[in-house]
Amino acid sequence: MRQVELLGVEGMPEVGPGDDIGQLVAAHATLLAGDVLVVAQKIVSKSEGRLVDPTTIQASDDAVRIAARLIATPDPRMVQVVLNESVRILRSERVLITETRHGFVCANAGVDHSNTGGRDVLTLLPVDPDASANRLRDRLRELTGTEVGVVISDTFGRPWRLGIVNVALGVAGLAAVVDLRGTADDNGRPLHATVLAVADDIASSAGLVMGKTARTPAVIVRGLSFEGVGSGQDLIRPAAEDLFR
Amino acid sequence: MRQVELLGVEGMPEVGPGDDIGQLVAAHATLLAGDVLVVAQKIVSKSEGRLVDPTTIQASDDAVRIAARLIATPDPRMVQVVLNESVRILRSERVLITETRHGFVCANAGVDHSNTGGRDVLTLLPVDPDASANRLRDRLRELTGTEVGVVISDTFGRPWRLGIVNVALGVAGLAAVVDLRGTADDNGRPLHATVLAVADDIASSAGLVMGKTARTPAVIVRGLSFEGVGSGQDLIRPAAEDLFR
Repeated sequence: MRQVELLGVEGMPEVGPGDDIGQLVAAHATLLAGDVLVVAQKIVSKSEGRLVDPTTIQASDDAVRIAARLIATPDPRMVQVVLNESVRILRSERVLITETRHGFVCANAGVDHSNTGGRDVLTLLPVDPDASANRLRDRLRELTGTEVGVVISDTFGRPWRLGIVNVALGVAGLAAVVDLRGTADDNGRPLHATVLAVADDIASSAGLVMGKTARTPAVIVRGLSFEGVGSGQDLIRPAAEDLFR
Repeated sequence: MRQVELLGVEGMPEVGPGDDIGQLVAAHATLLAGDVLVVAQKIVSKSEGRLVDPTTIQASDDAVRIAARLIATPDPRMVQVVLNESVRILRSERVLITETRHGFVCANAGVDHSNTGGRDVLTLLPVDPDASANRLRDRLRELTGTEVGVVISDTFGRPWRLGIVNVALGVAGLAAVVDLRGTADDNGRPLHATVLAVADDIASSAGLVMGKTARTPAVIVRGLSFEGVGSGQDLIRPAAEDLFR
């Protein structure tokens, strides 16, 4: 019976700037060769110091105007931080959906509230989630001698469907997509329109274990057999090919 | 350590009209109370006889015109079948994205090619995937005495991101979404915009085991602890609230 296990890494302490996530994971879990470690973006961002104190931000007129149009009327300084992280605004009525510098299209450019050391701060997405994933993969090899894949995940909303699902922002040591075009199905028919977003499926599966409030910010996915390497950028649809951007 | 297992149900034969999927699953796997069984839409559709022989279809002028604008120029009769399953066309340049009678927004209304008994036929989505899921759940209880959840999954593309992921079309015996609005995070902050699409995460996780060509059309997800009940309809964003429809 083909079997995949999803194992939550339990007991990790709160992560702060400068913390070594590789060391924290290695201290709380035993990794095997071929495992994929999925890590929540929030602890990666915190470890990398991707934090902004909103009281240090001056909101522009644009940010004030947009904030007034959004549900729950957020702090315009939070909106300003989102705009600073964005290259394009897709929607700014009720919810703020932008394209980030990385090319991700998501709510609030991935900026979120966090309580760090008793202070309310904003977390930003990692500057380069693929680089973050590769550093963590290298660090885990150094500490444990084990070759694993790494996915940095975050929860994104989607058009057409309700609710958020986990997706892959950064990928190291495994394929992000598997392109089946040109191969045949079980009946010998050529497969078309069949690029599998496996790193997103991996991130989603980890979301089942991360739980409701991300109390378990790292999950080991064991037993996968996808081959190849890739990056989180492989999962971004080029704007020119995107019918809904 | 919090643990979820994904177990492929191996050795099931090709499914045809009238076949009893509950019996096939029960003969090839041992279910435990609380398991969630994820079944690929295609075998559910086949068992329910949701098949169309394209040679029996007369393509309308609309279908001919649309087919000419699509990548790989499909058979206009296939396009006609898609139109028959749809209540609205969202895009008909390069790819055909419609809203189905159920409210799903997806490519080709979920219509796909299949080889059944040596003939090329088209498979349609189940008429009511929630009802299909409930029937399968009831049948499994009858055959095995075990209470399980059932998810009927299909692979959908998404705007903004490349590749297809598995989503939940029909749900029985488990929550499709978990609404955390009004609850607090680990630091006591109220969670907002936090409806988790757990049935989609479950479908995605099963996709990791179903594999590249759905050779494993049923997967057991064991060890989940989400509570409540729901339906596949819970995962459809109401058109009035949808910014991209």
